[in-house]
Amino acid sequence: MNKQELIDQIRTKGSFLCVGLDVDLEKIPAHLLKLDDPIFEFNKAIIDATHDLVVAYKPNTAFYEAYGLKGWTSLAKTIDYLNKKHPEIFTIADAKRGDIGNTSTRYAKAFFEDMNFDSVTVAPYMGSDSVEPFLAFKDKFTIMLALTSNKGGLDFQVLKDKEGTTIYEKVLKKSLEWQNSDQLMYVVGATRPEFFQKIRNIVPNHFLLVPGVGAQGGDLRSVCKYGLNDEIGLLINSSRQIIYASDKVDFASKAREKALELRMEMADIIDKAKS
Amino acid sequence: MNKQELIDQIRTKGSFLCVGLDVDLEKIPAHLLKLDDPIFEFNKAIIDATHDLVVAYKPNTAFYEAYGLKGWTSLAKTIDYLNKKHPEIFTIADAKRGDIGNTSTRYAKAFFEDMNFDSVTVAPYMGSDSVEPFLAFKDKFTIMLALTSNKGGLDFQVLKDKEGTTIYEKVLKKSLEWQNSDQLMYVVGATRPEFFQKIRNIVPNHFLLVPGVGAQGGDLRSVCKYGLNDEIGLLINSSRQIIYASDKVDFASKAREKALELRMEMADIIDKAKS
Repeated sequence: MNKQELIDQIRTKGSFLCVGLDVDLEKIPAHLLKLDDPIFEFNKAIIDATHDLVVAYKPNTAFYEAYGLKGWTSLAKTIDYLNKKHPEIFTIADAKRGDIGNTSTRYAKAFFEDMNFDSVTVAPYMGSDSVEPFLAFKDKFTIMLALTSNKGGLDFQVLKDKEGTTIYEKVLKKSLEWQNSDQLMYVVGATRPEFFQKIRNIVPNHFLLVPGVGAQGGDLRSVCKYGLNDEIGLLINSSRQIIYASDKVDFASKAREKALELRMEMADIIDKAKS
Repeated sequence: MNKQELIDQIRTKGSFLCVGLDVDLEKIPAHLLKLDDPIFEFNKAIIDATHDLVVAYKPNTAFYEAYGLKGWTSLAKTIDYLNKKHPEIFTIADAKRGDIGNTSTRYAKAFFEDMNFDSVTVAPYMGSDSVEPFLAFKDKFTIMLALTSNKGGLDFQVLKDKEGTTIYEKVLKKSLEWQNSDQLMYVVGATRPEFFQKIRNIVPNHFLLVPGVGAQGGDLRSVCKYGLNDEIGLLINSSRQIIYASDKVDFASKAREKALELRMEMADIIDKAKS
């Protein structure tokens, strides 16, 4: 998928919502556990119930790896289902990978070619040659951690150099020098709305993937106030709040209700941004 | 495995060599490709030929993920073979994982419980609550990236704060405050021997996993000069130089020759360090 197709989808749906498919067998409705592949069945039901309200799905690979080969099979089936049934939807492998040169290329192939995700999240610590191999794939996006929403995000990301520039700003600035940097997006936590203005000064045009709205306490409108750009430029992720809205047989319709609430708020924000 | 068992193994074998099992189907001997599981067969042959000379094996997960479910099966078979046949050997899942809180716990379970690796490599960018979930597992080790051997390692890791402390030093110092920090080890590239003295001032007692000897140009003796401590405290990794010493039917015996060369040098270094 290219950037314009993502923007078009956002405009058409009036939504920049991403749903995190972080499936935990201890949290999904009990009746699914009797099925052959409960994880896939859960994802399929969530996708069927919400696909017209969301523009992206983001399975976090940790939840699949934790179930070994079975988990990887469920992940492969989920992405396959999305690509076949809803090719217009932007898919994110939330894998936070990163390694040296050719090794990063292997990760890129695993997610971009083998599974055909539109994007993958990566960690910046190893620098240019750990990220550029991902950027070499045409019409694929590399979503780099910049400022994360967790407590430990403050351990290193906001350290300052002698000119007062923080590490996450350095990461943003440096990454713009990398080859195919227009295929970058950045992870910025919703729990840090006060930083969005600074971030938009450095990367006015790139998409930001924003986790932490809802369960982690981030506020949608505060994020949009500074994060929104002319092309929207935001993908707001919500996981638990939507997918675990109910643990009963009505889980999919409850997930739809929650997604609809967020999508309504987003449509309103998009609308107001126009005027 | 606990630290003392690792040290005992090093003393017994006169070796602190780790072999990286980074299997590329384009590089392994052609005759293996006819077999059911060429990756596992390759690993098994390398392990059978070198296990008495090495103290650790380190499959890099990228090489397995790149082959999808088949790759994960080969990885599972490899770690299973190691655990059953050579339980004394320290195993490292070179996965460079890291996520928020409970999500990191899932990765930890995947590698420590499901596959029963002794250790896993992690990235530090997301800070304390992305690494501590790994440290919660008893007799398991978390090997955190500190100073990596690639070019991009210099992009962010050596940036200095206003007191002149580099990020990688901050990472080392901060990590010592984390719960169960005695179960940390650190990745320090062999291509940066000049930094080892500084690193040993901060973490005198922790093991350092050192890639980059051989193919990447790092020198064993320079690393040992400053990196060695009273308990040896080093695991020197070599991948390509050993596993791809030959691409013919003699690949395993050639791998043994290369491993023996390094092990001889290590035995000499250990011996001289005693006197």
